[in-house]
Amino acid sequence: MAERESVGIVLLGLGVVGSGVARALAEHAETYADRVGARIELRKVLVRDATRERDFAPDRSLITTDAAEALGTDCDIVVEVMGGEDPAREYIQKSLSRGRWVVTANKELMAKYGPELRAQATAGGVDILFEASVGGGMPIVSPLRRDLSANQITSVRAIINGTTNYILTQMTREGAAFDDALRQAQDLGYAEADPASDVEGFDSAYKISILSSLAFHGHVRVEDVYREGITDLMPRDFRYAAELGYSIKLLAIGQRDADGVCVRVHPALVPKDQLLANVDGVLNAVQVEGDLIGRVLFQGAGAGSMPTTSAIMADVLEASRSIVHGSRPSPWRYTADMAMKPISQLTTRYYIRVEVSDRPGVLAEIARACGDNGVSIASVIQKETDDEAQTAEIVIMTHAAKEADLQRSISQIEGLKDDVRKVGALLRVED
Amino acid sequence: MAERESVGIVLLGLGVVGSGVARALAEHAETYADRVGARIELRKVLVRDATRERDFAPDRSLITTDAAEALGTDCDIVVEVMGGEDPAREYIQKSLSRGRWVVTANKELMAKYGPELRAQATAGGVDILFEASVGGGMPIVSPLRRDLSANQITSVRAIINGTTNYILTQMTREGAAFDDALRQAQDLGYAEADPASDVEGFDSAYKISILSSLAFHGHVRVEDVYREGITDLMPRDFRYAAELGYSIKLLAIGQRDADGVCVRVHPALVPKDQLLANVDGVLNAVQVEGDLIGRVLFQGAGAGSMPTTSAIMADVLEASRSIVHGSRPSPWRYTADMAMKPISQLTTRYYIRVEVSDRPGVLAEIARACGDNGVSIASVIQKETDDEAQTAEIVIMTHAAKEADLQRSISQIEGLKDDVRKVGALLRVED
Repeated sequence: MAERESVGIVLLGLGVVGSGVARALAEHAETYADRVGARIELRKVLVRDATRERDFAPDRSLITTDAAEALGTDCDIVVEVMGGEDPAREYIQKSLSRGRWVVTANKELMAKYGPELRAQATAGGVDILFEASVGGGMPIVSPLRRDLSANQITSVRAIINGTTNYILTQMTREGAAFDDALRQAQDLGYAEADPASDVEGFDSAYKISILSSLAFHGHVRVEDVYREGITDLMPRDFRYAAELGYSIKLLAIGQRDADGVCVRVHPALVPKDQLLANVDGVLNAVQVEGDLIGRVLFQGAGAGSMPTTSAIMADVLEASRSIVHGSRPSPWRYTADMAMKPISQLTTRYYIRVEVSDRPGVLAEIARACGDNGVSIASVIQKETDDEAQTAEIVIMTHAAKEADLQRSISQIEGLKDDVRKVGALLRVED
Repeated sequence: MAERESVGIVLLGLGVVGSGVARALAEHAETYADRVGARIELRKVLVRDATRERDFAPDRSLITTDAAEALGTDCDIVVEVMGGEDPAREYIQKSLSRGRWVVTANKELMAKYGPELRAQATAGGVDILFEASVGGGMPIVSPLRRDLSANQITSVRAIINGTTNYILTQMTREGAAFDDALRQAQDLGYAEADPASDVEGFDSAYKISILSSLAFHGHVRVEDVYREGITDLMPRDFRYAAELGYSIKLLAIGQRDADGVCVRVHPALVPKDQLLANVDGVLNAVQVEGDLIGRVLFQGAGAGSMPTTSAIMADVLEASRSIVHGSRPSPWRYTADMAMKPISQLTTRYYIRVEVSDRPGVLAEIARACGDNGVSIASVIQKETDDEAQTAEIVIMTHAAKEADLQRSISQIEGLKDDVRKVGALLRVED
């Protein structure tokens, strides 16, 4: 095969991440050429607004607002960093159909259409790489695809949303209320003006759908991910959790057992001596458990222009090496139909905070509601009492119980109208 | 290209790790076939003693004590898990020259002959993969080769010897003496009868030579790795370190700055709020710092049959996929000559423990010895005093100083014959 002089790149998007990629390509050009064996050449950049100021802008002649021009440019790799479903999906499909490799940071797209895009890439003898879609620069997609591939993975437990982890860390350290911690995160640029995607757990749900699909070799659809956000957490839940020896984290979990695969995103109590309990601030971390390896942990900056650029460029260099050396990518093989296990079949321990009337007999009623449904109580602590309002608050830790039984207990407790003001918090405990 | 039905494996060695590989190949056969697109077939196993009992033994007909027979068996991949330099090196060279891919767990070999073996593999259109040579099952070789390859790596800081980390953890937690902690480690099977390779830092030196060569794209020779073991550490150093807010860890460090690359293995004080300070027991962890990614941490079981099998099988599956899909491996490119920076040019902070005569003026003499050589003292604490022997002990923390200046200060302090009994400990501080 003739030596190749260059590998051509078309970049779709020039926001925070796109600018980082353009800058890395310019500033590391020599190193990358050395590592790949050919120059990596930026040939066109698609932007929405050609007049906007950029962190780093490549040569004006490379910039276009015309998608057809960008997609029609002769190149080997298309790097998609626009985000969102449309028109990113269409652009990627077109690129794959023209025999281009695709590198994308698009979690929403990979969560929803990963299997079909990967199948299209395989059919065309190319690949779609998406390390940057989860965990910023922290390697996790490639380790699951390659380094841990000899394992039967049993679980993936992840803190993969830096915004919410920052908010929870502030609520833990400073006893801040959710709204105040959110405002702080917004002031620091960690949270968007509309924070729903982060704080309601959508972002984590996309990412755990991607990681679980890789870990379990099947497609975990976003609709099959159980999801709860962090907006209802109260400062006192953090205080009580700490007293009991736990941190509260927004966990994204994929678990496989004999009954199937259960994938979920929700705040959880994590024992303080576990690694994940101590991953603070905007850091991300993923803990993978497999039959051979036991437990392995990856930790790093989960977002930001430079870390995300690190992940995108790793994929670009990998694709470039394959292109230069004429390697065909190995197709990804999904195993046969995978049984999904709904959260109602989950078995775990629970933390329940109930606001009650401060009078005798209440606890007995609540205990009965649990017992009637097969939920066994491990400990009960009476917390604050408000003499004026004649209310008290009790915190219950259960033994391992089935989610469906637990939910029935909660309904019954909520039905104790005279005695129970409300169930203030229901959190799963991840041991 | 015709579909391939199988990929043939010859296994050299059937010890703890070799048995794990044979077991995984047998027990995961279907899954691996599914992931690769062809059966992975064990065709021959070379052992020294065919009569020995094994954890897991493949079919008798596969076992041979005849190296020529094993190496002459028709196969695609040779897996070397014998360890040691000879005859492993010769067997690997022969295998590569016959166009076979090689997967090895041999740290000594890769540290000493990595570049020439990799060059031979590249020349033959195959590859030599060595994930298992460092960190057991924890992925670190492949992340450095691939996932972090877009970065200029500035440092690799690692706890990569589980035996010494177990010993140091026991000395920290239980105030144990080195000999007692070593005996405990031996009783638990964590340390060999002859522990020199671990406790003198040779094992860590091989591994950091491999990681630094990958990180800095040059060959860091084992002879260029500065090395100190943990045998001289005293229980009171752990106590004093804890009082000052540090843990003591055996760190393996590769660092690049404008002056060159400095690679070293020695016990060090690590601030307790750093991740590496809290990696306890037999766990391994590697923290990599790069210009794009910032800091990223990998943590997992650094040894053991199953974790090491996880790493070897990841390489076997990778090689198998390449073989099945007719991919050529990308050659590894070493950059031009890399300047090595000797430890004498290192600048860091130091912890010094000196046993002195308990009389006035001693501290002034020691302070002068430091000042004369340009070493600035940050704090001095007088620790235990032995009234009977009329000795005292002082602990000095310095500001950042050059190693050469520090060593001259130590010589001068040791020359204060009347006042100084001995310099009991000299430890670098890694902030």
